[in-house]
Amino acid sequence: MNRFLFAALAASALATPIFALAQRTPPPLPAAVSPEVERLRDAALTDDVAWTIVEGLTTEVGQRLAGTEAEARAREWAVARLTALGFKNVRVEPYQMPVWERGAESAEILAPFPQKLTLAALGNSGATPAAGLTAEVAVFPSMAAFQAAPDDAIRGKIVYIGNAMPRTQDGAGYGAYGTARFTGPALAARRGALAIVIRSIGTDHHRFPHTGTTNFPQGVKPIPAAALSVPDAEQLERVAARGRPVRMKLVLTPRMVGMRESGNVIAEVPGSDPSAGIVLVGGHLDSWDLGTGAIDDASGLAITTAAAKRIMEAGTPRRTIRVVWFGAEEVGGMGGAAYAKAHAAERHATASESDFGADRIWRFQVNLPEEATPVADRLQTALAPLGITRGSAPGGDGTDIGPTLQLGTAAIDLNQSGWDYFDTHHTPDDVLDRVALPALRQNVAAWTAMLAVVANAPEPIDPVKPR
Amino acid sequence: MNRFLFAALAASALATPIFALAQRTPPPLPAAVSPEVERLRDAALTDDVAWTIVEGLTTEVGQRLAGTEAEARAREWAVARLTALGFKNVRVEPYQMPVWERGAESAEILAPFPQKLTLAALGNSGATPAAGLTAEVAVFPSMAAFQAAPDDAIRGKIVYIGNAMPRTQDGAGYGAYGTARFTGPALAARRGALAIVIRSIGTDHHRFPHTGTTNFPQGVKPIPAAALSVPDAEQLERVAARGRPVRMKLVLTPRMVGMRESGNVIAEVPGSDPSAGIVLVGGHLDSWDLGTGAIDDASGLAITTAAAKRIMEAGTPRRTIRVVWFGAEEVGGMGGAAYAKAHAAERHATASESDFGADRIWRFQVNLPEEATPVADRLQTALAPLGITRGSAPGGDGTDIGPTLQLGTAAIDLNQSGWDYFDTHHTPDDVLDRVALPALRQNVAAWTAMLAVVANAPEPIDPVKPR
Repeated sequence: MNRFLFAALAASALATPIFALAQRTPPPLPAAVSPEVERLRDAALTDDVAWTIVEGLTTEVGQRLAGTEAEARAREWAVARLTALGFKNVRVEPYQMPVWERGAESAEILAPFPQKLTLAALGNSGATPAAGLTAEVAVFPSMAAFQAAPDDAIRGKIVYIGNAMPRTQDGAGYGAYGTARFTGPALAARRGALAIVIRSIGTDHHRFPHTGTTNFPQGVKPIPAAALSVPDAEQLERVAARGRPVRMKLVLTPRMVGMRESGNVIAEVPGSDPSAGIVLVGGHLDSWDLGTGAIDDASGLAITTAAAKRIMEAGTPRRTIRVVWFGAEEVGGMGGAAYAKAHAAERHATASESDFGADRIWRFQVNLPEEATPVADRLQTALAPLGITRGSAPGGDGTDIGPTLQLGTAAIDLNQSGWDYFDTHHTPDDVLDRVALPALRQNVAAWTAMLAVVANAPEPIDPVKPR
Repeated sequence: MNRFLFAALAASALATPIFALAQRTPPPLPAAVSPEVERLRDAALTDDVAWTIVEGLTTEVGQRLAGTEAEARAREWAVARLTALGFKNVRVEPYQMPVWERGAESAEILAPFPQKLTLAALGNSGATPAAGLTAEVAVFPSMAAFQAAPDDAIRGKIVYIGNAMPRTQDGAGYGAYGTARFTGPALAARRGALAIVIRSIGTDHHRFPHTGTTNFPQGVKPIPAAALSVPDAEQLERVAARGRPVRMKLVLTPRMVGMRESGNVIAEVPGSDPSAGIVLVGGHLDSWDLGTGAIDDASGLAITTAAAKRIMEAGTPRRTIRVVWFGAEEVGGMGGAAYAKAHAAERHATASESDFGADRIWRFQVNLPEEATPVADRLQTALAPLGITRGSAPGGDGTDIGPTLQLGTAAIDLNQSGWDYFDTHHTPDDVLDRVALPALRQNVAAWTAMLAVVANAPEPIDPVKPR
């Protein structure tokens, strides 16, 4: 660096965060981690168990929509596989749930430019008549534009809501942009719309619609609700931009089929100290019906299970590790709610779920009691060689573990990169081809290190205030 | 380079083509090209006409399967647009053709692992009963394995043929690996198969099936024939690899709807010297029915038309440029055949088509008479700044111009990169999102340069022996 440039930088630093940083207390030296943790972590980088779970479940069961016979087959598959892997106390904990099933689905612009569009019904969507429903489309580029519109621009129409979700590493866009799916249909129903189609909550530009649940509160009659693939949504917007009224025919014939059995599949690595609390890990067994649920969430099951198996094979941990393959996550988190209800009296040390795809973990965040801070410090050391940084926000994320966290259970989140996740999420393209073995193995290594640190931590891990 | 390395390279060069190359006559100096050609070429790099054609046709018409009312609407659109662009002698030349239309289509593995598969019927496919057809699947990883199998491994079965097409810049894999689609169904029908599903002739790993025509010769009763998306094909192979018999249910209800009208849309830039022969350029107006045919072949129409318009606006060329938007290419090249029949008595100087997507042109190849070699030399100079190299094989490629080339017309091919083409070719994903404006403009610039050189070439361009 030449000295003029150096002087300029030094001067500018006076006003920049670089300078501020230099004034802070230097970060503490890394906490020491036992060589055994490092050995287990590094050995997991050649793991094959996770792959065989993802490949097996997606091939031998395929899609497994909650509450259907396919999800029941998946539970049988799960019990057989978890037993064969050597876990203890393998069992199914059943519960009842209302089941929604997809029917026929098609969309067609009738005027001004006749053409078919690709879409998929949202979970809990109402149905059109079997012969379809035809109406003018009220096109809104965003939720804000929809909300600002007068009711008479909506009444008797098929509402379209665009909403281009940005790509982010941490998935921050899903909550903000997902409202078009989560609450758009109920709002449209309340305002007299005949039906609603939204731009898929996704970041790709391929003709895969992204399904997912929507919600019609008690007293709001469900209207037909579906997601157009992103190119189809943009096509509809281009057609509408020509300025002539757009008429659409919609056929959506899903139905509620009543109460059915679903269940959580549970397996354990018993610990030596039952009073130290359970370390709960897992993902969800059910999937959407369009793909085979490889990244959502066969990978999460595979990663957490492969890691638990590695700890089991290394000897008896202090804390019991409980692996749960939750049922019925996609359609409303019934499995997670049933688990928390059934196990509320048990002492959980921590809860962690893997349900954000199969890409590499880039960050961990915790919600631990003060006295367990050294556990987080050791995690930081143990995870760093895998390219994982420590986040500063409180952890405690996930639909399945959410109800258990609400009971005051401490949380450790291992965050996967969501950069590509919403390209595929809830589409027909969620299949084995989306899972990269090296990334899957990085996940297993991270979870193995986490379990090795947490399950054997000598510190107490007491309840916390949920974040 | 250190001298030891240099000595080693020099020694090894004795046995390598590098040395052989050094012994050749040095290449000739570049031919001179008029500044007007360069000016026209470079101005085309900001072209917007091509984009408005691709965007307009795919938005305002959408899919336009040959012989359907959608293709008829596309012809109306074409006449209006070509007229508005200022072309002369805009007209439709109609012809009759047999029309095949897609019906319902679904596939389901019933055993050993029940699950749905994604597929699309091939053009000219026969139909299953409306309720479907159920049979055991005979799985062959390749055409070779299928051909080697005894008839009793095929009779009464649903045949599956895998065939992983490699990615190539020049599209070389399509002919070789396409046989599973072109002739596999007829061979399977002859050998007593009930139906056939093939791995899509594509290079992607997404759940888009690639349709395309197949052919049942006179006397062979069409069987149901469809393409599985590549992930679904690999899923079927994984399921079969578990070693248990695979039973599949197939519903395919396409039908031949009889003879219908199709047509070629023709537009001209009249030249000053009718005796010099016509320069024929174009692409095809029809598309497959799954996407909107943005890369196949709205882009080809757009590129050639935008280039011709630029020449028109620069003044009257020596040779008439005829732009043809051929009908019914996808389903058997009826438009190209009808054109050659109707115009056999006319003198064509050259023929060139753009029908390989919307990616950049990387190479040109010609089939020109000896006396027109200077034209090719000038093309080399004019195209080089666009990153286009001269190929050594004889040119003359394309379904639409094929019959005209067979009459002895000289050929100039501008080859687009096919690296990504078969990711999208004939899938629902062939939509506007696949077209990149900078690449489209490079194409327009190359075609503009080509037309500027060829239409104004003072040399005669006489008939040639077809390659």
